[in-house]
Amino acid sequence: MRGPLAGIVGYSGYSGAELVRILERHPRVQPVLLDHREDAVVPSSLRHRSPRRLPCQAEAVRHEGLAIVFLATPPEASMHLAPAMLEAGARVVDLSGAFRLRTSGHYQTWYKQAHTEPLLLAEAAYGLPEFCRERIPSARLVANPGCYPTAANLAIRPLVEAGVVDRAAGIVCDAKSGVSGAGNKPTARTSFCEVTENFSAYSILRHRHVPEVLMVSGLEEREFSFTAQLLPLDRGILETIYFRAVGVTSAEELLAIYEKRYAGEPFVRLYPRGQAPDLRAVARTNFCDIAVTLDAATGRAVVVSVIDNLVKGAAGQAVQNMNLMLGYPETEGLL
Amino acid sequence: MRGPLAGIVGYSGYSGAELVRILERHPRVQPVLLDHREDAVVPSSLRHRSPRRLPCQAEAVRHEGLAIVFLATPPEASMHLAPAMLEAGARVVDLSGAFRLRTSGHYQTWYKQAHTEPLLLAEAAYGLPEFCRERIPSARLVANPGCYPTAANLAIRPLVEAGVVDRAAGIVCDAKSGVSGAGNKPTARTSFCEVTENFSAYSILRHRHVPEVLMVSGLEEREFSFTAQLLPLDRGILETIYFRAVGVTSAEELLAIYEKRYAGEPFVRLYPRGQAPDLRAVARTNFCDIAVTLDAATGRAVVVSVIDNLVKGAAGQAVQNMNLMLGYPETEGLL
Amino acid sequence: MRGPLAGIVGYSGYSGAELVRILERHPRVQPVLLDHREDAVVPSSLRHRSPRRLPCQAEAVRHEGLAIVFLATPPEASMHLAPAMLEAGARVVDLSGAFRLRTSGHYQTWYKQAHTEPLLLAEAAYGLPEFCRERIPSARLVANPGCYPTAANLAIRPLVEAGVVDRAAGIVCDAKSGVSGAGNKPTARTSFCEVTENFSAYSILRHRHVPEVLMVSGLEEREFSFTAQLLPLDRGILETIYFRAVGVTSAEELLAIYEKRYAGEPFVRLYPRGQAPDLRAVARTNFCDIAVTLDAATGRAVVVSVIDNLVKGAAGQAVQNMNLMLGYPETEGLL
Amino acid sequence: MRGPLAGIVGYSGYSGAELVRILERHPRVQPVLLDHREDAVVPSSLRHRSPRRLPCQAEAVRHEGLAIVFLATPPEASMHLAPAMLEAGARVVDLSGAFRLRTSGHYQTWYKQAHTEPLLLAEAAYGLPEFCRERIPSARLVANPGCYPTAANLAIRPLVEAGVVDRAAGIVCDAKSGVSGAGNKPTARTSFCEVTENFSAYSILRHRHVPEVLMVSGLEEREFSFTAQLLPLDRGILETIYFRAVGVTSAEELLAIYEKRYAGEPFVRLYPRGQAPDLRAVARTNFCDIAVTLDAATGRAVVVSVIDNLVKGAAGQAVQNMNLMLGYPETEGLL
Repeated sequence: MRGPLAGIVGYSGYSGAELVRILERHPRVQPVLLDHREDAVVPSSLRHRSPRRLPCQAEAVRHEGLAIVFLATPPEASMHLAPAMLEAGARVVDLSGAFRLRTSGHYQTWYKQAHTEPLLLAEAAYGLPEFCRERIPSARLVANPGCYPTAANLAIRPLVEAGVVDRAAGIVCDAKSGVSGAGNKPTARTSFCEVTENFSAYSILRHRHVPEVLMVSGLEEREFSFTAQLLPLDRGILETIYFRAVGVTSAEELLAIYEKRYAGEPFVRLYPRGQAPDLRAVARTNFCDIAVTLDAATGRAVVVSVIDNLVKGAAGQAVQNMNLMLGYPETEGLL
Repeated sequence: MRGPLAGIVGYSGYSGAELVRILERHPRVQPVLLDHREDAVVPSSLRHRSPRRLPCQAEAVRHEGLAIVFLATPPEASMHLAPAMLEAGARVVDLSGAFRLRTSGHYQTWYKQAHTEPLLLAEAAYGLPEFCRERIPSARLVANPGCYPTAANLAIRPLVEAGVVDRAAGIVCDAKSGVSGAGNKPTARTSFCEVTENFSAYSILRHRHVPEVLMVSGLEEREFSFTAQLLPLDRGILETIYFRAVGVTSAEELLAIYEKRYAGEPFVRLYPRGQAPDLRAVARTNFCDIAVTLDAATGRAVVVSVIDNLVKGAAGQAVQNMNLMLGYPETEGLL
Repeated sequence: MRGPLAGIVGYSGYSGAELVRILERHPRVQPVLLDHREDAVVPSSLRHRSPRRLPCQAEAVRHEGLAIVFLATPPEASMHLAPAMLEAGARVVDLSGAFRLRTSGHYQTWYKQAHTEPLLLAEAAYGLPEFCRERIPSARLVANPGCYPTAANLAIRPLVEAGVVDRAAGIVCDAKSGVSGAGNKPTARTSFCEVTENFSAYSILRHRHVPEVLMVSGLEEREFSFTAQLLPLDRGILETIYFRAVGVTSAEELLAIYEKRYAGEPFVRLYPRGQAPDLRAVARTNFCDIAVTLDAATGRAVVVSVIDNLVKGAAGQAVQNMNLMLGYPETEGLL
Repeated sequence: MRGPLAGIVGYSGYSGAELVRILERHPRVQPVLLDHREDAVVPSSLRHRSPRRLPCQAEAVRHEGLAIVFLATPPEASMHLAPAMLEAGARVVDLSGAFRLRTSGHYQTWYKQAHTEPLLLAEAAYGLPEFCRERIPSARLVANPGCYPTAANLAIRPLVEAGVVDRAAGIVCDAKSGVSGAGNKPTARTSFCEVTENFSAYSILRHRHVPEVLMVSGLEEREFSFTAQLLPLDRGILETIYFRAVGVTSAEELLAIYEKRYAGEPFVRLYPRGQAPDLRAVARTNFCDIAVTLDAATGRAVVVSVIDNLVKGAAGQAVQNMNLMLGYPETEGLL
């Protein structure tokens, strides 16, 4: 028999549908679709799938004894739903930006709206296991990281920790994402004819994912330049990260920093010097692949970091967090 | 009656076919296909086009009195053909990298082969009209710029000239190109199934176009970090350029530098603050579109520069150079 | 000086924007944008273009003396605007389906709405020049053909006229179109993530373009099976047409039927036996390319017909009609 | 402990790599890479995978006791390797066309080369489990069906068996495939810039997969018109199949024929009237999805059949055959 019930709100969105896909093969939990607004209609991508459906209401969640609920919803909906789900006895993994930042003020600044649940914000654990693994197992509410910050922080924080970044010169993170990162609401910007054979930058220097990178990496805003860009493809994020290296004289030394930091980490893979990952290397997986280039003579360094934005950047990492919260092996259902 | 004959060697490649397309509508010259190796077979993209064909031989070129010959060939072929074409009395626009750099040594370093025509290398005029317009009209041999350096130098040199770049922190140029930039030789790297739904970096920090940027922009290699990347689309280059601005306090001031520098330039377009070009804005045109973002509080600046790699990055700029060489209006056949 | 004014309603749609692109280079007329509803905002694709703008009102059209108005609007809008434009003294080319069929009843059956201008419907000339060239020059109102019927009728009608189709076995037309054929309204069906790496059939056997094919080709509905399908690309239509040939014994004989029928036609190109066009052959052109395969032993025959749905399937053919209406060479501005 | 060893020759091709992907998760067998020619270098798509490697030699296969060997090789290589592998004691699933047809003469006609193993050709079992399930469990050599014939036969044979096809009018099968179906050898035809934003027909009426359809469906060549076409996407086949229905008066009756025929089949899914599958519905799965449209008044009928060409059209079906050969549940490792 399968184990506890795991509810999914927002299953008709791209991250939500990916959660269903992963949880249907997870050996320990049973997925349940929680009908919330547009989710009341099952999308064609789930047509052939079997999970039960429940209304997305605290009473239903409590009555069925759901162990955990995933919120694949916009931040406003998450602020509204998280307290009700917690009150109903479920633990919560929120995939929106609602509970990622540390303070209401910070949230107001970047999300341009008031935070309605400041106490939960203070309580939430940030769910980047590679750096925050201690708090997750006991957390009631885990804020699943943003897609861009996941790829960025896994690449940048070890460098900052090791003190090999010339912080006066700063770090540049040039990020490119597939279109599924923009969600499934039809818009002119994400229509096929606008995206195909096209490429564009957006939110230059002021993407709302920036504060997550600063929070985890320890960089100051003035030290970090970030541009998001839209690739004509479905899924995947590649970030090209530039900095001036200090105190290291070879790519191997930079690699050694990562190897030490990520020894035993199941979802970070490092590339030997001279190789670099492409998006295919991580498509439909929970891996983050990292490669390093260093021009020893001048200190110019480039790190390439890639993830699947719907897996390690959303649904996969959410299940990784669930595994930690429910005491399962961290890789369960993810390899 | 139409005017002088313009020969095209390498018309079966992407840049060569684009030259045919542009010259067929050019009101002043008549294109002639010069059959060289694989070009002896007309590709399907030219099947419905009408230009005459000649063998690619000095005698044929001399006998027909070709005024100008475009070499859309690899650098080795260009080093071999340019002297013969010049000897036959034609002027030459070379689209390869053979005659772009200043010295044989520099060429040897970046192209990993000896330069067989050092005197011609010394004689050649670099064909970026916006910065080298004086020498082009009288040049026998024009070296048409590389695609990446065209987009980079048009964005970077005005900033360096104006002294607004913190050169200690350096400039990052994160470049993305469509697949046609890799030429039409079938390779595993450019096959459809490897490129679609994929994105990858290559030649990190050591692309052979780097020295062209240094030569024109005046930057030192240690000040310039460049990564080339392959977009899953046919044509277009977008470069995202990062630097620390000094001595300017607003995006408008940066824009004013460009506006002054490019006043009267027909092929550079500037975007108002808050807007940025995408690849579609310049597809199948000879324009370079440039937009600026500045965070005044910290000096972090981002410039986005886009071109069509086959037009302003190759065939269009070559025709722009031809117009200057033959005394036609610079925009003839290009608007 | 340029000549008469040509107004465009619906210039922010894909067909309308293509009209602007073509008319801006047309040597005989001056395009004017007529602001109608959403068109009041100029889309980015027209940002760098220069045409004047006028309100889309009969008084404005009359006052400016517009010679011709293109309606690139939905059928309901066209039924509303056509009478006003005609009353203002302009001639009209309508790109919608409003005036293509012969009777109000037919329109009601296929478009599921009442026709509000039955007298105009009766008056309108069907604008497929290759078969209806006589009525177009003097027509006040031309109904520009649908994209699918243009490719289908150019391929099928010569065969039916020549009597080489086994009509008891019927004709199959398997049609594939790029996404721009669905218009630029953002929908779930045309969003990038739904279309990329996907392919699907729709309106199987009951597409509203079917009656146009029957009307022009002379086939009965029971003789004609049509399926529309969505290709993951921007523009282009390819139709694969199957029938049993009677009375011909070689592909050359079939080709000869087309050659005779289209002798002198500037926009139909035929392929020699063994070759077939792809979408690239006609992209951004007003050509319809046709190729023939016949298995002589069994009579099985296949015709491939390709057009650019936005050019020969919409804006290009509309300009071809305008050229005929205003007495210009038929190919003016289209080669 | 995992069970018997399953060797894969041709693991660097698209079908071979898909076999590795599937077998790595298969709970009953252990994949082993057999190094054959170009396979001696592990491609990047397998870089992070772990299977052992062996030389592709009969002695190695015998010594290691491989239970089964998959040949994902061209037909010439398969004719050469199959006898050696069988002699070494392994059973063989061949994914090429080498052993699919019934006679050497037939093979010579369609593959334009002599068959060098006529006895094995006579012995081989055709591996379409839905129609040939009896012979597969005891077969030494299974010929895995072609991709196009799999989608075609699953759609067509139940109709022919039920006698609802007007065979005088014939059946049209208009087939579209992703580019991975063409293999991973770089060619001009499959290079990115030729395929993107393009669509083309090839092998019109004479594709070498035609005889497989005739063999399984029972149709005569004169009754069956087939065109293959290249979609600008990686993987997936959609076939649109047209015929005149006789003896049925509703789509439901047609559906009932399929429902009866495929009752209990784990990998065929039927769609209710009014719905149709797209390629996404079956991507990365072993399903064949089928939908039906019928115009009862005229008998015109359309069946849409979709598969993933690399799974049900190649590697997945090969594993389905292996499951039958080794006595495992048919769906093992495939759901």
